[in-house]
Amino acid sequence: MKIYADNAATTKMSSAAMQAQIACMEEYFANPSSLHSLGQRAAEQLFAFRESVARCLGAQAREITFTSGGSEADNQAILSAAAAGEKKGKKHIVSSAFEHHAVLHTLQNLERRGFSVTLLPVHENGIVRIEELRDALREDTALVTILYANNEIGTIQPIEEIGAICRERGILFHTDAVQAVGQLPINLQNIDLLSLSAHKFHGPKGVGALYARKGVPLSPLIAGGAQERGKRAGTENLPAIAGMAAALEEACAHMEENAKHIKALRDRLIAGLQTIPHSALSGDAHKRLPGNVHFCFEGIEGESLLLLLDARGICASSGSACTSGSLEASHVLLAIGRPHEVAHGSLRLTLSRETTQEEVDAIICAVTEVVATLRAMSPLWRDLEEGRREHVL
Amino acid sequence: MKIYADNAATTKMSSAAMQAQIACMEEYFANPSSLHSLGQRAAEQLFAFRESVARCLGAQAREITFTSGGSEADNQAILSAAAAGEKKGKKHIVSSAFEHHAVLHTLQNLERRGFSVTLLPVHENGIVRIEELRDALREDTALVTILYANNEIGTIQPIEEIGAICRERGILFHTDAVQAVGQLPINLQNIDLLSLSAHKFHGPKGVGALYARKGVPLSPLIAGGAQERGKRAGTENLPAIAGMAAALEEACAHMEENAKHIKALRDRLIAGLQTIPHSALSGDAHKRLPGNVHFCFEGIEGESLLLLLDARGICASSGSACTSGSLEASHVLLAIGRPHEVAHGSLRLTLSRETTQEEVDAIICAVTEVVATLRAMSPLWRDLEEGRREHVL
Repeated sequence: MKIYADNAATTKMSSAAMQAQIACMEEYFANPSSLHSLGQRAAEQLFAFRESVARCLGAQAREITFTSGGSEADNQAILSAAAAGEKKGKKHIVSSAFEHHAVLHTLQNLERRGFSVTLLPVHENGIVRIEELRDALREDTALVTILYANNEIGTIQPIEEIGAICRERGILFHTDAVQAVGQLPINLQNIDLLSLSAHKFHGPKGVGALYARKGVPLSPLIAGGAQERGKRAGTENLPAIAGMAAALEEACAHMEENAKHIKALRDRLIAGLQTIPHSALSGDAHKRLPGNVHFCFEGIEGESLLLLLDARGICASSGSACTSGSLEASHVLLAIGRPHEVAHGSLRLTLSRETTQEEVDAIICAVTEVVATLRAMSPLWRDLEEGRREHVL
Repeated sequence: MKIYADNAATTKMSSAAMQAQIACMEEYFANPSSLHSLGQRAAEQLFAFRESVARCLGAQAREITFTSGGSEADNQAILSAAAAGEKKGKKHIVSSAFEHHAVLHTLQNLERRGFSVTLLPVHENGIVRIEELRDALREDTALVTILYANNEIGTIQPIEEIGAICRERGILFHTDAVQAVGQLPINLQNIDLLSLSAHKFHGPKGVGALYARKGVPLSPLIAGGAQERGKRAGTENLPAIAGMAAALEEACAHMEENAKHIKALRDRLIAGLQTIPHSALSGDAHKRLPGNVHFCFEGIEGESLLLLLDARGICASSGSACTSGSLEASHVLLAIGRPHEVAHGSLRLTLSRETTQEEVDAIICAVTEVVATLRAMSPLWRDLEEGRREHVL
């Protein structure tokens, strides 16, 4: 029996989400753009799911555009805001140093098109500082894009304050909330654009949404038909949207109790791993996602740690799944000031509402043993222990 | 009991496809980019599905990039070829006048960026002429993009000859094969880029693929993680890919017998509708998709026709679902030379392997009666009958 502790990479679909998706595949298979009654019934369902997703977020249905996932939503949000800014001669964007690659790579593409980008530091606690945001804003700032909660170390940003400053200055504010939606209550008050992805909250893969406040212009990333009011071409993926709506309803209905359960397990896991010498929790201990535990262990290599944990039936990650297999140290860990050699010894354990205390205790036991095993084999660790290198953690 | 004759808009998922997708949701929910064993098992499945899709097309696995559907694949194919052309100073693209909007709108966006686009006429039979293609090619032509089979009138283009000419001239050739894949045998010999969509061949919605011949450069449309070898960011939609692979295997295994069955029904339906006076089949009678029947009827309005057919339980379309609700006459029908008033009286009936002869006979009967009913109410028809206007059909 596996212990699945990689819920930031993806979650298992809930049975409610799966049932909703399957029912829709069978009953509402028609194209919602078709004028006949089967098409119109599908269109009614689409409308109902849009209302449902909007209600969970505190938005209006017309502010929700369905996408194929979080990456597409991030790309579209940023490119749309950039296009709107460019029309007014505004070609500066403020973001953070540890955004998801869907944001960072889109910003790099814009830099090639003449935009300038300021990446705010996130400091050791993994949180941007409001005063540094203020200082970074310019007359020609078109957009601020800051992720709601980091996908590797789980730290939560001061989104309401960031949004308030942007609103005050008339600057569009986007947040990649892929890790936050379904886990944290979202207040859209000062948010203009928000990306979400269903498979992060026990919904289906291949579907997400982009919230765009009424009046915020969206340019289509995918050109073609007039679906999604001209903002996203392609036949609507109604069954997946049904699954997403069901998963989001479920997550929002039980958010508080789930968060309480998951946080207790998270803190138990953190306390257990902190007893390992020369280890450090990454990022703020409290301003982090309910289910995120991220540690660096000196003198070991994260990939070996994962493989040995896997051999014991524990599914974990060293960081983002999107960049796994890459030999480079995580840009997130470098951004919070971890030296390269420590950043390589990282472990991300992300819990869900299905995680049990027995699983957490088994993880603590396994990680403790595996870290010791790996250190016993490590020349780097010997150097540290014998004083030829200095401990950093 | 409904008669579903709108299979060009979307098809009902086959039970094989649905089972494959559901099994994958349950068993292989992990992120294929995760390094743990659940992730690696998902990655193995992904590889197997890619091999399966490639095998059905006669391609290599590495030539297949999974997308969220046909529109995304069209956008990415064209933008990639345009970017590659631009680097060599080639900014001319040849296409046809009746492409899908995912192609046409992408070309319009490129025109705004300084590209020039030549749209070949498709003539009354709905087929481009090879000599006109030859004449349109220029020294600076970067791309030819011609749809394999039209989504409204179903006419099949001389893809092999077009591809051969492009190959000879060193010009990239893309085909939107969304309506063709799963219906027609595909020969990739002279094709560089090909788009397909699963929900058109009894697979799931929200998933498609872009074939790109080895060596043909693809730029990501969605920037971010390194999925799909850096060509398409975002967590892979493994369950939908499983459903697509199953649906394509099934469609390809029975293609010949299905085509025989569907063609016989198509020709029976065409013969039945041709007995209605002042009606005309749109496009070539033989070089058309096995399941496509498209007629124009003088003196009536297509939307009323659809609604009355719907009241009799028949799901049909006036053209593309992607532009339904629009008051403009179809660009496809205008391209084959139908006058505006005739183009408005159009009916598309698209059959599938599940269509029965009884259904076809019921459609013939219903259309005949409904056309007569509508004409009896139509002032335009009275003008035609009383000689104040001339019949066109």
